[in-house]
Amino acid sequence: MTPSPAFRTDRYELTMVDAAIQSGRADLECMFEAFARRLPTGRRYGIVAGTGRLLELIRQFRFEDSELSWLEENAVVRRPTLDFLANYSFRGSIWGYQEGDAYFPGSPLLQVESTFAEGVMLETIILSVLNYDTSVASAAARMVSVSLGRPLAEMGSRRTSEHAAVAAARAAYIAGFAATSSLEAGRTWGIPTMGTAAHSFVLLHDSEEEAFRAQVDAFGTNTTLLVDTYDVPRGIALAVKVAGPQLGAIRIDSGDLPTVVAAARVQLDSLGAVNTTITVTSDLDEFSIAALSASPVDAFGVGTSVVTGSGEPAAGLVYKLVAHRSPDTEWVPVAKTSASKVSIGGRKNAVRRLDEHGTARQEIVLLGAEPAAAPLDTEPPQEGTRDRALLVPLIVEGVVDERYTGTAGTTLARAHCATVMTELPIEAFRLGRGEAVIPTIYR
Amino acid sequence: MTPSPAFRTDRYELTMVDAAIQSGRADLECMFEAFARRLPTGRRYGIVAGTGRLLELIRQFRFEDSELSWLEENAVVRRPTLDFLANYSFRGSIWGYQEGDAYFPGSPLLQVESTFAEGVMLETIILSVLNYDTSVASAAARMVSVSLGRPLAEMGSRRTSEHAAVAAARAAYIAGFAATSSLEAGRTWGIPTMGTAAHSFVLLHDSEEEAFRAQVDAFGTNTTLLVDTYDVPRGIALAVKVAGPQLGAIRIDSGDLPTVVAAARVQLDSLGAVNTTITVTSDLDEFSIAALSASPVDAFGVGTSVVTGSGEPAAGLVYKLVAHRSPDTEWVPVAKTSASKVSIGGRKNAVRRLDEHGTARQEIVLLGAEPAAAPLDTEPPQEGTRDRALLVPLIVEGVVDERYTGTAGTTLARAHCATVMTELPIEAFRLGRGEAVIPTIYR
Repeated sequence: MTPSPAFRTDRYELTMVDAAIQSGRADLECMFEAFARRLPTGRRYGIVAGTGRLLELIRQFRFEDSELSWLEENAVVRRPTLDFLANYSFRGSIWGYQEGDAYFPGSPLLQVESTFAEGVMLETIILSVLNYDTSVASAAARMVSVSLGRPLAEMGSRRTSEHAAVAAARAAYIAGFAATSSLEAGRTWGIPTMGTAAHSFVLLHDSEEEAFRAQVDAFGTNTTLLVDTYDVPRGIALAVKVAGPQLGAIRIDSGDLPTVVAAARVQLDSLGAVNTTITVTSDLDEFSIAALSASPVDAFGVGTSVVTGSGEPAAGLVYKLVAHRSPDTEWVPVAKTSASKVSIGGRKNAVRRLDEHGTARQEIVLLGAEPAAAPLDTEPPQEGTRDRALLVPLIVEGVVDERYTGTAGTTLARAHCATVMTELPIEAFRLGRGEAVIPTIYR
Repeated sequence: MTPSPAFRTDRYELTMVDAAIQSGRADLECMFEAFARRLPTGRRYGIVAGTGRLLELIRQFRFEDSELSWLEENAVVRRPTLDFLANYSFRGSIWGYQEGDAYFPGSPLLQVESTFAEGVMLETIILSVLNYDTSVASAAARMVSVSLGRPLAEMGSRRTSEHAAVAAARAAYIAGFAATSSLEAGRTWGIPTMGTAAHSFVLLHDSEEEAFRAQVDAFGTNTTLLVDTYDVPRGIALAVKVAGPQLGAIRIDSGDLPTVVAAARVQLDSLGAVNTTITVTSDLDEFSIAALSASPVDAFGVGTSVVTGSGEPAAGLVYKLVAHRSPDTEWVPVAKTSASKVSIGGRKNAVRRLDEHGTARQEIVLLGAEPAAAPLDTEPPQEGTRDRALLVPLIVEGVVDERYTGTAGTTLARAHCATVMTELPIEAFRLGRGEAVIPTIYR
């Protein structure tokens, strides 16, 4: 049995629930918000991912007998809290940026409206999922934008923990990757899977030629032969000798790629293998992909850098209480005010202002506004511009909007991301370090 | 139902099995090895972690009906391979460095002896688990070594994906952390859990004083009050006013810590709270912990940096076929030889040479040797020195050594790591960039 996601929680969330039940504040109506104080250093935009996974985890977030007895045995909380947890399921509402959308510093990515007890318990699961998946999608989007339309495959399962690998494949796919090496990601999320052979397959055989012949016998000539086990030019010559000029593809996993790839293309063409494509897969990241923009590469395989967020393995999202109210009173904005790490309290709505060409110019955060699909309380956009509403209802009074979950939700997020990328100013895609590509304006 | 870990696999592993079954090489006896070509930039040593988790995953690594039907529907492999997978369980043997041990470039961390088909299928799951857990343990060990005996708590669940969080807590604990915020890590691995309240608990109440009173009412005066929501000196004054000088601890999560902590200690002492301890938790890493060595901090809480390997979120371990043999023939060492990424073929044994003070001086890798607990084929150590065998049998002909699994295995690994840390030369603990603290010698 899969243990309940309710225990993928920090202990302090349950002790806060315990103390709030005792102090009589547990049922206060609250608004929590997930947001990033800043983008990772030098990044111009981020891509929200994880929402679809998160909605399913929130639905499964229940305390069963095994959780309750552990909490009791370990004296984490007391009897009234155990009774509350036994009956807990999230009955509040959550608004959020649609999965696959871009975000900027201060974008109110998720707004959770519920009692204090219901909302505070979701802090860790919300941040775990959104921080990791958003980190991967944000890195993946940069790789896609410099790939010049050539397909990218995610193959980094071995460079992140075994469950994270499946989430990473999904996040990369949402950001525009074409495929994954992960079978579980194929099964769970409907992502196309790819992969043929590693160096071990070549080394297993008495010669490279024998290995190529075994692979072609098994999969036909439209396979991908890995040609760099011993010597690339010799490997290519053998590959075309074995498979003929109709060979599907070669893969190169080492060496100085711009040089090696150019020579490989010349050699393939000279052997008549003009339609044989070249896939490269050697510790690639957005910078090395960009450096191959003039090289005759047909497809990229990316591992470590995409699943670890290309140097930024956590997106830096935080989850804060921003407002509360008693029944029959107004919302009271709240925020930490000491030292660094200042937050902006209050409920928020958000729109992205697009100019007459449909290009994003401002992220407008409307303070004190109710989260809503229609922009509220903002000055009317100038002629030719329009404001795109950014928040969509993800959970309404405990009921998950199923359009955002499962394989359909993943497909939807991928399509949304593709659209949003066309809306960003061209400066967003510069790899060099800089500030967020559009300013966040608070009104 | 938890899906089988068998699908946390890259597609190419199964296509290689498929092609090898057809070419008649699938049953060849093989030796695969997991190792690191280098340590992360600047690091002096690494700490192996993940082994106990990995052994349980290998035991569960089976293809059930749901996996087999997916592979068939998606035409990943053919009928003979499906039949093979239906009956698959790992029946080979695995030797490895004991979990919690140190390692260096080229250390043969894991050696997998099995048929090609059985061994190649484990590549991704082995690397996923070892790369992530080792990354966390290696970073955690650096933090422990600069903490001067003061306890560290892992609280980074929110900064890594939701399952990785549990593995991270375990790896940090093995490397010497004292506790975790993760309830699932407490339940699954028996790690002490900690945590009391966040800023949201303070903000929920009408005043900081009311929040402190609620927490003390719930948990007694021996609790930890978070004093930096509004103003630290005012927070400390209120905390001692509410809980009295017997207050257990205060927590500070922001600001210039050396300054703030020194002032906090003076203030607490002046209020008579001389036994009230100070916990700090603000984006700490090994460098900021070291910078607090002269500060009156009593405990550290570490999040992002430990669960993301402090800048090195994947340990860079690779898994390579290093030798094979047919029945009745000798082992044939094999290795990729082109361009960069060269490997050293052949089976290996390894010992760590300790000098007369018990300090590690060399990592000795014995080429062509059978993995064995007793050092083989090495020249006898000089007088006063000794060679510690590094490889232990983890799985023998498919049977897992249970001593290394579960909570007992985690406890064992933690104890082993503590011993190994005392064996490393003192230069290992310098935070500045440098080479591996001992050389790897191949014989």
